[in-house]
Amino acid sequence: MPVSPITLYFDFSSPYAYLASRLIEDVAARHDRGVEWVPMLLGPVFAATGSRPLVEQPLKADYARRDMLRSARYHGVPFQVPQPFPIATHQAARVTIALQREQPERATAWVHAVFNAYFADGRNVAEMPVLHALGAGLGLSGERIDAICADAQVKAALKANVDRALAAGVCGAPYFVVDDEPFWGVDRLPQLERWLQARF
Amino acid sequence: MPVSPITLYFDFSSPYAYLASRLIEDVAARHDRGVEWVPMLLGPVFAATGSRPLVEQPLKADYARRDMLRSARYHGVPFQVPQPFPIATHQAARVTIALQREQPERATAWVHAVFNAYFADGRNVAEMPVLHALGAGLGLSGERIDAICADAQVKAALKANVDRALAAGVCGAPYFVVDDEPFWGVDRLPQLERWLQARF
Repeated sequence: MPVSPITLYFDFSSPYAYLASRLIEDVAARHDRGVEWVPMLLGPVFAATGSRPLVEQPLKADYARRDMLRSARYHGVPFQVPQPFPIATHQAARVTIALQREQPERATAWVHAVFNAYFADGRNVAEMPVLHALGAGLGLSGERIDAICADAQVKAALKANVDRALAAGVCGAPYFVVDDEPFWGVDRLPQLERWLQARF
Repeated sequence: MPVSPITLYFDFSSPYAYLASRLIEDVAARHDRGVEWVPMLLGPVFAATGSRPLVEQPLKADYARRDMLRSARYHGVPFQVPQPFPIATHQAARVTIALQREQPERATAWVHAVFNAYFADGRNVAEMPVLHALGAGLGLSGERIDAICADAQVKAALKANVDRALAAGVCGAPYFVVDDEPFWGVDRLPQLERWLQARF
């Protein structure tokens, strides 16, 4: 029986999803699993749960800034507090989806390029010129990126990803599902790894 | 220079604070620290952050139930999903505070007795007869517990604990502070422990 991948629901605006993006492939490889990357949008998730971005919540905003930096140090991942934050990520998500369909061998490289640009290099990946520059590094023309972002089928596919996430119970990001077992947060990776080892 | 204790802000209604209560003393002992237990109330914290109990949040409620059970298994701590939940915990908190002042050698035993009664044994620690029974196990009469719960100074001290927590930035429970470094959540214990080792 083929083993199913680790499904990772993410929004490019989530610092903790960025940390997860830097860690999950090693976890998956240790257990002979793949990673299914599912870009979605936290806005509709927050609307469903009645939540808001951390930085808009009193007390939690100050804590989160400190926690993001320390969590990145803890995991040995380069990080700077993103500014502006949060940002619109639907264009970067659409490009991900189109690549997953048309050039899957480049899709994961795109995911890492976007996450790293925003959280390690401080570039605003909501801006099309930034996405164009990232695409150029992967052999994608600016025209292709613009066409993807305007494509009605791709837009619908992103909406379908959001619907799939909500149906799966996704209440934040990163949100992992392994063999129907859900894990919310990069801090659940130890539990996810034990699940892979022992189903417990 | 004497080292300061690990300060642990908690509400007896928090499942993750219960898990922390079962784990923190071992962490502290490994690093020659004590634990300062600070009972407070999550209600005013949620009012300050604009949050609500997890079980009242769509999607998060279902996830939290599963996560609590798995987190308890992960840490090897006996646990059952509390019912009713959440509950009023001010009386149990007041007894904690009075013991910390008058019989500090019994205060920590009381904290564990209340947490274990609610989360391991399924007893509703909002009810005075349950608190009386727990007190009996520690040599506290029901009359003494009732007197503590009605004491204006103890009530004021609990309110002062809540004010102290908000001033310290407490945005949930468990919330730890080590040498001015804050850690929110039992899932931050690995980072807390590394902080104790390496200040990083």
